[in-house]
Amino acid sequence: MRVLAMLDGTLADPEAAHIRVDDLGLLRGDGVFETVLVVDGKPRELGPHLDRLERSARMLELPAPDRAAWEACVQVVLDAWRGPAEMALKLVHTRGPEFGDGTPTGFAIGMPIGEKVLRNRESGVRALTLDRGFDPEIVDRAPWLLLGAKTLSYAVNMAAGRWAEAHDADEVIFMAADGSVLEGPTSNVVIAEGRTLRTTPPSSGILRGTTQGALFRAAEQAGWVTKVEPLTLPELRAADGLFLASSVRKITRVHTLDGEALPDASALHRELNALYESEYA
Amino acid sequence: MRVLAMLDGTLADPEAAHIRVDDLGLLRGDGVFETVLVVDGKPRELGPHLDRLERSARMLELPAPDRAAWEACVQVVLDAWRGPAEMALKLVHTRGPEFGDGTPTGFAIGMPIGEKVLRNRESGVRALTLDRGFDPEIVDRAPWLLLGAKTLSYAVNMAAGRWAEAHDADEVIFMAADGSVLEGPTSNVVIAEGRTLRTTPPSSGILRGTTQGALFRAAEQAGWVTKVEPLTLPELRAADGLFLASSVRKITRVHTLDGEALPDASALHRELNALYESEYA
Repeated sequence: MRVLAMLDGTLADPEAAHIRVDDLGLLRGDGVFETVLVVDGKPRELGPHLDRLERSARMLELPAPDRAAWEACVQVVLDAWRGPAEMALKLVHTRGPEFGDGTPTGFAIGMPIGEKVLRNRESGVRALTLDRGFDPEIVDRAPWLLLGAKTLSYAVNMAAGRWAEAHDADEVIFMAADGSVLEGPTSNVVIAEGRTLRTTPPSSGILRGTTQGALFRAAEQAGWVTKVEPLTLPELRAADGLFLASSVRKITRVHTLDGEALPDASALHRELNALYESEYA
Repeated sequence: MRVLAMLDGTLADPEAAHIRVDDLGLLRGDGVFETVLVVDGKPRELGPHLDRLERSARMLELPAPDRAAWEACVQVVLDAWRGPAEMALKLVHTRGPEFGDGTPTGFAIGMPIGEKVLRNRESGVRALTLDRGFDPEIVDRAPWLLLGAKTLSYAVNMAAGRWAEAHDADEVIFMAADGSVLEGPTSNVVIAEGRTLRTTPPSSGILRGTTQGALFRAAEQAGWVTKVEPLTLPELRAADGLFLASSVRKITRVHTLDGEALPDASALHRELNALYESEYA
């Protein structure tokens, strides 16, 4: 069950061809995307996702996404969905065909959440730290590196995932050259220490997290302290709980880091998950 | 004038849609490519290009490109071409649709060389050095960074080009975090010092150059010394000539580096170009 809508609002067959070979999203990974979680027909954090799509597009100097068109396109997918209660809704915005009229390519595709992601939400995951190769101090002075933009150029993120799977792990946590913690290839890192939640800062060249943002909002409401500041590997190991937050993962618990078991954070996981869900109750 | 052939050897309309929205080449920049120069119906360095396509595919753990099918596909484009004497022939090999049967996507598209590239070949270019953010010592120990693979995840390469154009330059030369010279976003760096040609080593995380390789072969034949070793920015500035080599650029001269005029290397440029062309006489 997949539902595809092009940005003009027309439903289309997801198994048919809709993209030209010279689309710069394909030839150059030159585009941006978002993945939105939809539960019972309601998209979660759609506003922040569209904000981030716009921010990413700006960093790539793409035509600005037409917000009203995107909202309408999302609604077309929601209306046509007959699948499970949860859907992963991907929004893709590319520079369009190289030999075209300059119109960007846009589509939204809804699909079920993968089995593995659902399983990992329950059982937790084994994570591996991998070097991402850059020093956070480069972020501000090298905007051409597009650090912090959610682009279609995800070959490294995919390769890191394959590396993890080949080395007895489910997930990756990227580390910067200075030893600071960055993010997962498609998630944000959150730790709990007592009644404090901490995550790494966007200024280190990572994506601002929408799910992490929702969790922090709920936690602040419930009296937790939240901090957005650099984290180190020893801090991940010593925390009461280590989690990966993303739209489709929600708040997934890491139970093993670089092959070593972490303290049992199952109860904490249930608590944080309830906090996150309370945002949509 | 563009000619498109799918990997099965069928000619196709380059302005029609042939790619599914869930092609991982599009959604994740998860694929590899080559650009081959064709002159008077003859592809240059096709063997080395297909070798590199295979090497890149291996680094991404893609299905191995079917060499015989690629050679046949290239021939289909060559036979159908009715455009100018020179053609840029792009070969694209992706992981295929996410919800497919595992068959990779492959196509070859021939197109005329862009006006700007042709102009730059004659007049030379202004280049800007930009930080690429990583230290070459990471290349061997972080294979998930895919350094040295020619992937479709080229958003940073494109962003660097836009940065150059916005800052009074035509081309970029990437620098490593340790101050060593890397490559252009889609070219290799070559300098001439007396009767010696030097280029930067693939071990620094750059692509092995096919055009640079052809130039070095011809130069060695003509008695030049060639060296593949790390280069520094002062060496680029002090050289008798600084050049960018790529299939479509051939050997393009850099006349201005970071806003400063370099010594006139027009005669040297003519000599190197003649050497390069002698490989195909």
